[in-house]
Amino acid sequence: MQALPGFRDFLPTDCAARNYIFAHWREVARRYGFVEWDGPVLEPTELYRKKSGDEIIGQLFNFTDKGEREVALRPELTPTLARIIAAHEREFKKPLKWFSIGSCFRYEKQQRGRLREHIQLNCDVIGEPGLAADIELVALSIDILRVFGFNEKDFVVRISDREFWIDFLKSQNVPEASWQEILQTIDKSEREPREKTIEKLGALSDPVLAILEKGGRSEKLEKLVDGLRARGLADFVDVDVRIVRGLAYYTGIVFEVFDRVGKLRAVAGGGRYDNLIEQLSDGATKLPAVGFAMGDVVLGELIKDRPTASQKMETTLRDESKIDIYVVVAKEERRADALAQVQQLRDGGYRVDYPLVPEKVGKQFQLAEDLGATIAVLYGDEWPQVKVKTLATREEKLVPNSDLFARIDSLLR
Amino acid sequence: MQALPGFRDFLPTDCAARNYIFAHWREVARRYGFVEWDGPVLEPTELYRKKSGDEIIGQLFNFTDKGEREVALRPELTPTLARIIAAHEREFKKPLKWFSIGSCFRYEKQQRGRLREHIQLNCDVIGEPGLAADIELVALSIDILRVFGFNEKDFVVRISDREFWIDFLKSQNVPEASWQEILQTIDKSEREPREKTIEKLGALSDPVLAILEKGGRSEKLEKLVDGLRARGLADFVDVDVRIVRGLAYYTGIVFEVFDRVGKLRAVAGGGRYDNLIEQLSDGATKLPAVGFAMGDVVLGELIKDRPTASQKMETTLRDESKIDIYVVVAKEERRADALAQVQQLRDGGYRVDYPLVPEKVGKQFQLAEDLGATIAVLYGDEWPQVKVKTLATREEKLVPNSDLFARIDSLLR
Repeated sequence: MQALPGFRDFLPTDCAARNYIFAHWREVARRYGFVEWDGPVLEPTELYRKKSGDEIIGQLFNFTDKGEREVALRPELTPTLARIIAAHEREFKKPLKWFSIGSCFRYEKQQRGRLREHIQLNCDVIGEPGLAADIELVALSIDILRVFGFNEKDFVVRISDREFWIDFLKSQNVPEASWQEILQTIDKSEREPREKTIEKLGALSDPVLAILEKGGRSEKLEKLVDGLRARGLADFVDVDVRIVRGLAYYTGIVFEVFDRVGKLRAVAGGGRYDNLIEQLSDGATKLPAVGFAMGDVVLGELIKDRPTASQKMETTLRDESKIDIYVVVAKEERRADALAQVQQLRDGGYRVDYPLVPEKVGKQFQLAEDLGATIAVLYGDEWPQVKVKTLATREEKLVPNSDLFARIDSLLR
Repeated sequence: MQALPGFRDFLPTDCAARNYIFAHWREVARRYGFVEWDGPVLEPTELYRKKSGDEIIGQLFNFTDKGEREVALRPELTPTLARIIAAHEREFKKPLKWFSIGSCFRYEKQQRGRLREHIQLNCDVIGEPGLAADIELVALSIDILRVFGFNEKDFVVRISDREFWIDFLKSQNVPEASWQEILQTIDKSEREPREKTIEKLGALSDPVLAILEKGGRSEKLEKLVDGLRARGLADFVDVDVRIVRGLAYYTGIVFEVFDRVGKLRAVAGGGRYDNLIEQLSDGATKLPAVGFAMGDVVLGELIKDRPTASQKMETTLRDESKIDIYVVVAKEERRADALAQVQQLRDGGYRVDYPLVPEKVGKQFQLAEDLGATIAVLYGDEWPQVKVKTLATREEKLVPNSDLFARIDSLLR
């Protein structure tokens, strides 16, 4: 029996790599003053039906529960965030800087970097309409990738602005009802054949393609880049109006993070969504917001792909997986004494292992090495003395068992 | 719009409390040499249908996905573990000491300490049939609770043995087909009226009630308590054959952890399941196993209920939520200079916040206090000097901005 297609089993080394990603996400989000929240994996389908756009709805893992409720495994975290903020916003001073790490689900064809369950980091600034929030958030997305060992040669943040396109559509007298469809077409234009884009855009195809080819700028986009330049981060960003984002609820700045080589799907993406909280609260709560999501799958591939990042991860994981002390039971008569001290050493905060059943001493030392133990403590004929051996240097010393703690502390603290 | 009934929104303080529980779970599991794994939230329904028992099946969140697969939100972690072990056991030396922390789902009536989504810690020792593994695991469950600040007056591990009951049923010539039902009745006897138990047990009610009233012992149970006594943990356990556990797959030692007052549901429960991996692999992999699960909901209630534990948590959370530095922008002309240093301080690993938009200096200092900042750095008329203020002592000092890092390091490192 196997896991469902598109779902992952995390063996200990996989789980450690995943936790390494989570730990770095948390670390940098906290440096930026963000606090963590979380919500349910299962939500009312209604939460997504109107606001997330057709692409997400078509890929929902949704069903009717035993209480006849229409429910869905969350495809993204933003609607849950907007729901929670709408219910609790009076409890908090604005702006809020919130992040979350959680599983998201999409029923779609499996392909590289795209699974049915993946884990997303979401970071959002809520309650601040100004560009300062957008800048803070883009800077955060850059610094999160930098902490894994990536630099400006590894990735780029492509920044765009839906308002740039809305202004264009207004100038072309395009009725508002068609905007979403045209934005989707522009969003897909990089991945679809040129003829298909031309066909979908019809009369608009000439002016749109002209912009896509020569690029577009705006005062807002220039200011955003200036703000990042002040932080020394300008080399990490390109203004690129080909970015539109698939989700329906974005209203302003949008951005996506890509590896420079362009081999992988977007590592992260986000933007401003000033109306979503108002819509989800039926007008009760009006709060501007800007946020981004970063998935663990593409990021994990990028880490594997770059030696600096992958070596950094391997070194960290090797160090973190080590135990401190392996207790060698050389004489079974000493097992009870050994276990009493195992208990005390663990109480002292050390990572300690020992053989559950009688084993040859040589095999026990081999296990100690395998587990990366720094120290082995041997309980045998020397009792009430024990032999303390530093495995890296082979240095060993007999100490009275009553002095064991002091000896261990001097070696490990 | 609200969360579904039985599902939780974690506002930042709730999320911090949850992460506090996770961090302590991980910390103690690692002291015991356990390594972390994880699996999918969604599994084939088949994984649970035969092995988990009727109670779990009746409460499954299950549905048919868009690919016509019968799938279920996992109600527990053990079948996933058994599935993964069966597929990968050759890659690992035995015994395995594995733990996992993950959401589990049950569609059942809401009541105190019982939600539809809760988070479980699972710890399992796989590949060791001897009682040493059971002892190690019970000791771990005790030490995990001790690390939250609980002692032997707060909780008790009630330990039993299904083999004790199987031996009894054999002695009474009860056919094997009836065993599971009788074990379920004994399991429920504490929570059901005595008459109902008598009715269900029929001819067996006299001998069973006699055992339940006077208690039962066995050599295995005595040895288990001896093993815990050698570690100084005997005061945390009671032999109590009224414990049987609801899940169908247990084969030997079973145990449940309760608060001593008896107000709450079980904090944790587990036992030996020597046949489950073999059954799930259609006989391909035969490995004995013993494990337990601890849920976050009842544990969270127990922490709130005990001053020692709740104060310990509050102190930790207060310290962890603090930022290091608040950057006060006293003159907007200095904002760019301030932000350049915000970036550098964050790069240095410090938690740094600042006002996204112009604010009065007094309000900025208030925000710094609210965020628990240790230090405020003021950018104003004194530039290129900045004012560094230690908020607790009100001590302040003007330093050239080029010396800021050295000053901060001396105050915070």
